[in-house]
Amino acid sequence: MKSLRTSVVPAQENHLPSAQLFHARRNFVRRGLAAGAVAASGGAIAQPASDASLVPPWTRSLGAPVAATGYGLPSKHEANVQRRQSPGLTSQPQASISFTPLQNLFGIITPSGVHFERHHSGMPAVDPEQHRLMIHGLVKRPLMLTMDDVMRFPSLSRIHFIECGANGGMEWANVAVPTVQYTHGMIACSEFTGVLLSTLLDEVGFDRTNGKFVLAEGADGSALTRTIPIEFALNDAMVVYGQNGEMLRPENGYPLRLLVPGVQGVSSVKWLRRLEVGDKPWNTREESLHYIDLLPDGTHRQYSGVQEVKSVITTPSGGQKLVGKGYHQISGLAWSGRGKVTRVDVSIDGGRNWQTARLQEPVLTKALTRFRFDWSWDGAPALLQSRAVDETSHVQPTLNQLRAVRGVRSIYHNNGVQTWRVQPDGEVWNVQLA
Amino acid sequence: MKSLRTSVVPAQENHLPSAQLFHARRNFVRRGLAAGAVAASGGAIAQPASDASLVPPWTRSLGAPVAATGYGLPSKHEANVQRRQSPGLTSQPQASISFTPLQNLFGIITPSGVHFERHHSGMPAVDPEQHRLMIHGLVKRPLMLTMDDVMRFPSLSRIHFIECGANGGMEWANVAVPTVQYTHGMIACSEFTGVLLSTLLDEVGFDRTNGKFVLAEGADGSALTRTIPIEFALNDAMVVYGQNGEMLRPENGYPLRLLVPGVQGVSSVKWLRRLEVGDKPWNTREESLHYIDLLPDGTHRQYSGVQEVKSVITTPSGGQKLVGKGYHQISGLAWSGRGKVTRVDVSIDGGRNWQTARLQEPVLTKALTRFRFDWSWDGAPALLQSRAVDETSHVQPTLNQLRAVRGVRSIYHNNGVQTWRVQPDGEVWNVQLA
Repeated sequence: MKSLRTSVVPAQENHLPSAQLFHARRNFVRRGLAAGAVAASGGAIAQPASDASLVPPWTRSLGAPVAATGYGLPSKHEANVQRRQSPGLTSQPQASISFTPLQNLFGIITPSGVHFERHHSGMPAVDPEQHRLMIHGLVKRPLMLTMDDVMRFPSLSRIHFIECGANGGMEWANVAVPTVQYTHGMIACSEFTGVLLSTLLDEVGFDRTNGKFVLAEGADGSALTRTIPIEFALNDAMVVYGQNGEMLRPENGYPLRLLVPGVQGVSSVKWLRRLEVGDKPWNTREESLHYIDLLPDGTHRQYSGVQEVKSVITTPSGGQKLVGKGYHQISGLAWSGRGKVTRVDVSIDGGRNWQTARLQEPVLTKALTRFRFDWSWDGAPALLQSRAVDETSHVQPTLNQLRAVRGVRSIYHNNGVQTWRVQPDGEVWNVQLA
Repeated sequence: MKSLRTSVVPAQENHLPSAQLFHARRNFVRRGLAAGAVAASGGAIAQPASDASLVPPWTRSLGAPVAATGYGLPSKHEANVQRRQSPGLTSQPQASISFTPLQNLFGIITPSGVHFERHHSGMPAVDPEQHRLMIHGLVKRPLMLTMDDVMRFPSLSRIHFIECGANGGMEWANVAVPTVQYTHGMIACSEFTGVLLSTLLDEVGFDRTNGKFVLAEGADGSALTRTIPIEFALNDAMVVYGQNGEMLRPENGYPLRLLVPGVQGVSSVKWLRRLEVGDKPWNTREESLHYIDLLPDGTHRQYSGVQEVKSVITTPSGGQKLVGKGYHQISGLAWSGRGKVTRVDVSIDGGRNWQTARLQEPVLTKALTRFRFDWSWDGAPALLQSRAVDETSHVQPTLNQLRAVRGVRSIYHNNGVQTWRVQPDGEVWNVQLA
């Protein structure tokens, strides 16, 4: 249990060196305080409040005016909070991934500006006035809809995660990338607004006897296609145009995408242009060659799309450093493609002992849930883990339990427990338990 | 009841003319469909799916690559979704307001990029490494905290609205600005992350006998100060650094602000630098000269800070145009500074008859709640209203009920029912009922 293996992916030029990830969350420099005494005793005031030197320059001057029109951006001091590509992971930047910086984020809503990207043929520049959604196949009344048409249907909003089926894929074979941005950053959670797919299928009068599957096709250069079983289509799948209050971002499917809650992200086809109702799966390229589970006997498991119960500690996490002993809040994210998270347990000794974490309200179905756990670090090495349980009583497995069944040649559907090792100097490393 | 007065604020150069707000939500041009037949019968497909002309140029080419690092922005086609200042409303752009474009938004989360702004001395460029929070006054252990210190305390996340006390202020005296961006756009709702103020007050050992009020001071050029009653401070007030998953935006208090949920926005002091515990209100400039209610007898009501139950229809709303008779979803926002919204009623005849709208889950305390109502427009003039009720059984009043008590010289705390008139040609106007 105590045998550890630690490695860092080489030649990842845009991985921040750990010196730049010095603090638990960001690079603020601590000044004027006895180190390690912060939350326990606080920083005593060294100067009286009337000391003019305490008044910073921005309080002694007029600030920036309100602009006549505008769209706001993060502070320049937060420039390190970005999506990041993993160089070498794919051969072409148009068929690539950029990862969500989970180590920098709070709460459950992912800012749209850092929502992970996964494109198969690059990001198309879709003109919303020209965009159409065609619905055809085993239907009575095939339809071609403009964006105006789609937006006139009854709408609803729901908070859901989208997770790429390959999230955590580099961990299968012990690559052990250094930060949670790369281990788990192919996930994001947004408030989505759109139309239930069932509403549109009712509108076209789909064949309830023979219509067993829906093909979704994107308007990107790969014309990415995925087969959606009709039970998902009629349950909670949505045709989505809104994300976190505004229109979808270009890299997330503007102006229209499918959302199949709880199912691996590739099924939530972006730049959605076509829905076809059929009587059997289409076996398209992206569902027969990719997004499959290669098993130890050489066969592959197909259409295994539900993202099973999973969690990860985001603070502290790989590449960060604990500043001093004493109180630290352990915080992370949990989710399940099968419904609500009901419990998250945290271990600080690599899974030998577990204690239950607090779940932050609201706890929503097929959405990220933030958990928190109070910890007092004694300065000794620690092995931090989280383990989630969902409302179907599924329990998140260890990575080795997964490997025992699925081998080490898989890429997809790794929902294993993540381990972070806290070193005596406070540095946090991604490790895997033997 | 049917006597209407309609006016538009003159010389508002950045108000979009109604021609640019043609459609119910955005400017998409409808093509290839019989007008008005959309949701009812759909657009029949004029061309077979195999027609190459149906394949747009962006599907026939390689898209944009994933960037090595990046932070995403909205599509260029959404450039009209912006905060907007109201020219002439204030004499100085540093002591001004920009309004949230509620007419363009979905759901309950406000994108941080269009969260309304209200500055008293402009937006300061605070360096987070230099920023300090001082907590002193009637306390045993005064503290001076760095951002690192603040972020090491136990944290939590909550979704709450912030509404300026002056939101709707222009409606008191019949100004009737044209769009919901200007009538109600001094509100936004975010997922905030930070530390309970009660946790910090416990840390400094505040005087539980004599400590009745907390003064909050901002680090901007106005050093804006507000008195917070201790019961608010100990209930759910938070010292906040996170907004919608990332650090606060500069215009919303980066790196630290107070959040007093349910209370008028000015109390949620931005760029928070000082908290002082005292035994009586401070009667500062911003609580004795501004944010008061001027009553008909010439006296003024002070410290009336809770934002009472309120709602507004955002779609359709002023400046928009209904495209054709038939189905339209009426959608809007409701909120209460006293807790959860329990019911929203909608009237299409200026308040003579009411029907109950659906509330979109999750319904959270002191947060925006999205409501929706299915309506079939017969083409006749209509007077659209919404009326919210909260869990304390407060019912949103009409504007005239408010005026009967508070006169017409007030600026603040207008939670009256909003009326939108739908004209026979589908245009929607802001009107006030006599």
